[in-house]
Amino acid sequence: MDATPAAAAPIETDAVIVGAGPVGLFAVFELGLVDIKAHVIDILDKPGGQCAELYPEKPIYDIPALPIVTGQELTERLMEQIKPFGAELHLGERIDSLQRTADDRFLLRTDAGTEFLCKIVIIAAGGGSFTPKRPPLAGIEAFEGNSVLYSVRRMETLKDKRVLIVGGGDSALDWTLSLQPLAKSLTLLHRRDDFRAAPHSVEKMRMLVETGDVRLMIGQVTALHGSGNQLEAATVNTKNGEEKIDVDVMLPFFGLTMKLGPVADWGLQLNENLIPVDTEKFETSEKGIFAVGDINTYPGKLKLILSGFHEVALMAQQAHKYVYPGKKLLFQYTTSSSSLQKKLGVS
Amino acid sequence: MDATPAAAAPIETDAVIVGAGPVGLFAVFELGLVDIKAHVIDILDKPGGQCAELYPEKPIYDIPALPIVTGQELTERLMEQIKPFGAELHLGERIDSLQRTADDRFLLRTDAGTEFLCKIVIIAAGGGSFTPKRPPLAGIEAFEGNSVLYSVRRMETLKDKRVLIVGGGDSALDWTLSLQPLAKSLTLLHRRDDFRAAPHSVEKMRMLVETGDVRLMIGQVTALHGSGNQLEAATVNTKNGEEKIDVDVMLPFFGLTMKLGPVADWGLQLNENLIPVDTEKFETSEKGIFAVGDINTYPGKLKLILSGFHEVALMAQQAHKYVYPGKKLLFQYTTSSSSLQKKLGVS
Repeated sequence: MDATPAAAAPIETDAVIVGAGPVGLFAVFELGLVDIKAHVIDILDKPGGQCAELYPEKPIYDIPALPIVTGQELTERLMEQIKPFGAELHLGERIDSLQRTADDRFLLRTDAGTEFLCKIVIIAAGGGSFTPKRPPLAGIEAFEGNSVLYSVRRMETLKDKRVLIVGGGDSALDWTLSLQPLAKSLTLLHRRDDFRAAPHSVEKMRMLVETGDVRLMIGQVTALHGSGNQLEAATVNTKNGEEKIDVDVMLPFFGLTMKLGPVADWGLQLNENLIPVDTEKFETSEKGIFAVGDINTYPGKLKLILSGFHEVALMAQQAHKYVYPGKKLLFQYTTSSSSLQKKLGVS
Repeated sequence: MDATPAAAAPIETDAVIVGAGPVGLFAVFELGLVDIKAHVIDILDKPGGQCAELYPEKPIYDIPALPIVTGQELTERLMEQIKPFGAELHLGERIDSLQRTADDRFLLRTDAGTEFLCKIVIIAAGGGSFTPKRPPLAGIEAFEGNSVLYSVRRMETLKDKRVLIVGGGDSALDWTLSLQPLAKSLTLLHRRDDFRAAPHSVEKMRMLVETGDVRLMIGQVTALHGSGNQLEAATVNTKNGEEKIDVDVMLPFFGLTMKLGPVADWGLQLNENLIPVDTEKFETSEKGIFAVGDINTYPGKLKLILSGFHEVALMAQQAHKYVYPGKKLLFQYTTSSSSLQKKLGVS
């Protein structure tokens, strides 16, 4: 799918949740119970945040009443739980700017140009934005965004290009398979002949190498050549020595690193890259902007998923005051309230 | 099993948890992770607290990552999760007194005479003690504890007695079946000929009625007769009029009601029957005594099971300072720490 064109009208909604990790997902649930509609934005291409990205298969033992659960299963369980509220997830996008509007709402804009106009913002960004690791190559910054790409927004821009993909994980392999039919030529470069990617992707890639549709090189890029923002060639060091190959576009997939990212520029009070909040509403120094989960700090704070769950429950009470000013909120239990059960689609 | 004789030495342990509801059970887990051994005491005869007592079969929808779970299943999942820590549960007992000792520990005593000597106390008592409902009969207080019993501690005390059991639920039926072989005579009285108890218990009871081993009366007690604390007879009103029957012991099973109970006498600051705590350590006005779950109050407090879970996690950090003074506690994750995984028996 193409990115939303920048010129489109902003999406109007009650709440924008920044981050689709477990805490961001459970925020959809707690807001949903008090009739607050939310959109969720995450830079990753799937929900689950760190759980899904860093340890999808590793067991977690301290989620209450789940004696053992993987990050992946936790994510799936939360996705199931929030289904009744139909929140839209915007994946692979990063909120780059946030500003308060004249009518006391918030205007947010993603790096893909999607805009949101909302009454409250919930920052559930964990350790911050996952950011692609930059290969240590002199002058690479000049090519970034034009001919060095860390993600592919529009495949057609790579049509008939000489493409160099670097890496040995799922992203590198998946893009090798997707772009090969489209590209003029495709070279896959990895530092050793051993791939972490899914076995069936590796197998498909090897078939394309055999048929000559993909060139597989074992080695490392040592230099980039080009003019302006346009890459023209790359020097690759292999066990047979150096080789300079013609390249229009390079896609390095060296993994992700976590950075606070644009949140730092939103005018919020920060404390060592964390956002101080109160323990009653989990609100930041800016009214209507909440911070929950690993990104916030308060006396006693522990970076536990379960603490984020608690935080969003309390946050939702205050959020209700902003979204429905003057309307009284009756505290109810899902076990006994038929009105909550109706929202959950179970009565 | 007989109650522990009052003369036995106190059980020495790190922590006593008052209440075996979901939050009390999860406290075992969070304390266990930081090497604190706990005993759990509950007035009910099974773990799970309100969840297990009031709505074992009713679904709960707002436990994170458990889209739908009954009170019974939630309890079973928590029991499974705390298994590695081998905490002893003392069920059917109520902590009646709590006092600080000269060496700054706590001495607790249950109504069954069990004593505990510990370094910290965690009050996870929910809405308070479940207390048997008292039948509205003039002068009943005089007989209570001697010949009007709301629970049976030692079956042998009922040997060769003329027993009157009042009620139509599981407790009334179970005790009818258990005591009939032992008692001199057993009368079961219920206000209508329709029983809420398990069908197979009702069936067994009806067989004993047919064989003449149990007398079933439909009606209500209207008066008690006796001298001192010894019951001698009860007046029962049936559709055929009043009848006075000879009785040594009456067991009324009219259900449970919740009262704050003895907690009110422990010298803690209270606020409308709730215990105010801070939101960093969830400690009460008394150092070393914590209050978690529905029984505590703080700004923003919601009586959610999930909030209690968060509270015990933060509480455990401070608890560690009391149990291991001067020892530094390293915050670790169950996903990555082999030391935590060892405690959990998974590595």
